[in-house]
Amino acid sequence: MRVELINTGSELLLGSVLNTHHHWLAQQLTHLGYTLAHQQTVPDTGEAIQAAAAEAIARAELVIITGGLGPTGDDLTRQRIAELLDLPLEEHAETRDRITAHFKNRNRPLHKTILVQAQVPAGATVLRNDHGTAPGLALPTPRGWLILLPGPPRELRPMFTQAVAPLLAEKLPPENPITTRTLKTIGIGETTVEQRITPALTEWIAAGLEIGYCARAGEVDVRLTASGEGAAECIAQAEAIVREKLGPQIYGVEDEQLEEILIRKLTASGQTLAVAESCTGGLLAHRLTNVPGASAVFLAGHCMYSNAAKQNTLGVQPETLAEHGAVSEAVARQMAEGARAKHSADYALATTGIAGPDGGTPEKPLGTVFIACATPEGTEVASACFATDRETFKQMVVQQAMNHLRLKICK
Amino acid sequence: MRVELINTGSELLLGSVLNTHHHWLAQQLTHLGYTLAHQQTVPDTGEAIQAAAAEAIARAELVIITGGLGPTGDDLTRQRIAELLDLPLEEHAETRDRITAHFKNRNRPLHKTILVQAQVPAGATVLRNDHGTAPGLALPTPRGWLILLPGPPRELRPMFTQAVAPLLAEKLPPENPITTRTLKTIGIGETTVEQRITPALTEWIAAGLEIGYCARAGEVDVRLTASGEGAAECIAQAEAIVREKLGPQIYGVEDEQLEEILIRKLTASGQTLAVAESCTGGLLAHRLTNVPGASAVFLAGHCMYSNAAKQNTLGVQPETLAEHGAVSEAVARQMAEGARAKHSADYALATTGIAGPDGGTPEKPLGTVFIACATPEGTEVASACFATDRETFKQMVVQQAMNHLRLKICK
Repeated sequence: MRVELINTGSELLLGSVLNTHHHWLAQQLTHLGYTLAHQQTVPDTGEAIQAAAAEAIARAELVIITGGLGPTGDDLTRQRIAELLDLPLEEHAETRDRITAHFKNRNRPLHKTILVQAQVPAGATVLRNDHGTAPGLALPTPRGWLILLPGPPRELRPMFTQAVAPLLAEKLPPENPITTRTLKTIGIGETTVEQRITPALTEWIAAGLEIGYCARAGEVDVRLTASGEGAAECIAQAEAIVREKLGPQIYGVEDEQLEEILIRKLTASGQTLAVAESCTGGLLAHRLTNVPGASAVFLAGHCMYSNAAKQNTLGVQPETLAEHGAVSEAVARQMAEGARAKHSADYALATTGIAGPDGGTPEKPLGTVFIACATPEGTEVASACFATDRETFKQMVVQQAMNHLRLKICK
Repeated sequence: MRVELINTGSELLLGSVLNTHHHWLAQQLTHLGYTLAHQQTVPDTGEAIQAAAAEAIARAELVIITGGLGPTGDDLTRQRIAELLDLPLEEHAETRDRITAHFKNRNRPLHKTILVQAQVPAGATVLRNDHGTAPGLALPTPRGWLILLPGPPRELRPMFTQAVAPLLAEKLPPENPITTRTLKTIGIGETTVEQRITPALTEWIAAGLEIGYCARAGEVDVRLTASGEGAAECIAQAEAIVREKLGPQIYGVEDEQLEEILIRKLTASGQTLAVAESCTGGLLAHRLTNVPGASAVFLAGHCMYSNAAKQNTLGVQPETLAEHGAVSEAVARQMAEGARAKHSADYALATTGIAGPDGGTPEKPLGTVFIACATPEGTEVASACFATDRETFKQMVVQQAMNHLRLKICK
């Protein structure tokens, strides 16, 4: 079964916007057992959309097109696809009523052009949009199905999960489903991971196991893939071997995030956390508070950029700042202990470092960081140096900080 | 002149890796005056690469292919392109010597397979790789040029800037450069933006002006594009009209971020900022501290999830919390004024709201938020309701909060 993706949008070809749809949909499809054979980006012109769709429909069983379903003049996908498939556009009453109610509930005027989104090609299966106005559409083609999805990610993603995935399972079940398992590691390089695990997996590789590596800043995902009969057993055995070889350096599976693991564990044990950030500038608190229910265990975060704030918020000693500097083990320790004490938290994390692009010195080069983890048993401070750009630095420090706490509380 | 991009890599089609090459190269090409007409991703198979290249070369003057130039078994681009163009592979002595020296300097063993990277199609212009082993290649085609670039971003990017851009300027100068201008708006819907500006732009649209819209949560980018003689004048006039129609709802241009605008303005005026966050959970501080040099004006951020933290950090009154609840105008005001006073800052922003997925009530439904902006002239509190998912809610509130401050300080 051939699967193709067409992303429409001149902004993608001009480089104004990063194509996250391609990445996200490819992940979902892989997870469901489909392999994307081709992806292309075409501009917002009717001709380009129509030509790409015609070619893709002629060679693929499943074609997904993103974007161009909105109400403005450059939204041409619905109309041009209806033309291509020779289907008249008809008003879909339920969609018209939903859009009308959407505007009424928000006290916003309903311009007539908005209702163009309720026009759907005859015979289309309408995919309800619970996060916006334009519905998605599923259309039968001579070889299989054509799916049209709206451009905004917060509309496209739930629509794919709630409507497209079940439709595919029913209408186009994957022929030779693959089983995949992703194990997420932190703190070891890609080559080291590979050298530690492949010798033990030789037998399974010969039997068809595929291993993929995806390296990000400070982390490596190990993706195990197998297909056919015995795939589940193969993956289970291979996972056990990888876990034995990498031990606690595996922090999660699939798309699990460190913050989810921490909040879940703290919630289960009824314990609490506070954080004190300097160089990570709020990112640690942001990541933790992305998890629904974080408020039950995350008490407070302080982002203290100025020395005055470090003193007046968490009682970092002026003498410590003067003697060791703000980027030091001693200050990291006082920040973590200050945050833990102030909020009567069970645990506290603190970060202080040099994010750059300026501020490095010969003794404390750019990227130097101290990460403190205060617990009921005492405080530990780790140091590292991540010489990279400012945003990557913040991300790497936050991952390391969360990993320190994970190693303390997930045993 | 038609320009196409082919990204090779099965990992892109499996969703393991985000295609940042497409985004980055599209930006560079647009900046140099070329418009990407088509982008596609193909798997690492010789057939797929060769077929996509053959089609692209037949219809485009400039074709860029990324990836597949390395030394391993799945690196097939160089060989398959040589076959396609019927060119023999020959050893490039300078590249062979550079690779040999690269390994010798690093005391790493030079496997024979590595030197396959010194094999280049006869007649190719070799693009030196200063950050890795595989060189890039530029090959003349019947219609123009084919450029092959290595996959790793830290090799591809400097090679494009240092070698490809000058080669294009000499061999394929842009014939009809386009001029684009992106104006970023906040707080108005896509349809409203379109209806306010298009009637006034009719004349320019007839003369070739193209208008594109890109909607994100709470924001709409308006992209003006023109080409040919008079393009710059057309864009300048159109921009003036759009600015007149949308006024202060335009917050920036091109890829400018609100946080950059705020930090730049505060730095210029020598003023300072502190923030107090509840529902945005650190994201406001994170965004502000992403800007290099933020430490000169951003003093501190507090993310106070618990009521106790709201009281003991910024002096929110227990009676206010009891009477109005944590999500209230009164608490937002006390948070902002508390942060401003504690850090002797010129300005302070505060957010308190219901991010969800739980916690809504009939009086304060999910998505309710109060945003306070404390200034030397007093404190203003705005309320809104963004009924959406947790992460989008945080982003929308942070944009609104920064926009409040922008409207105060950028006049």
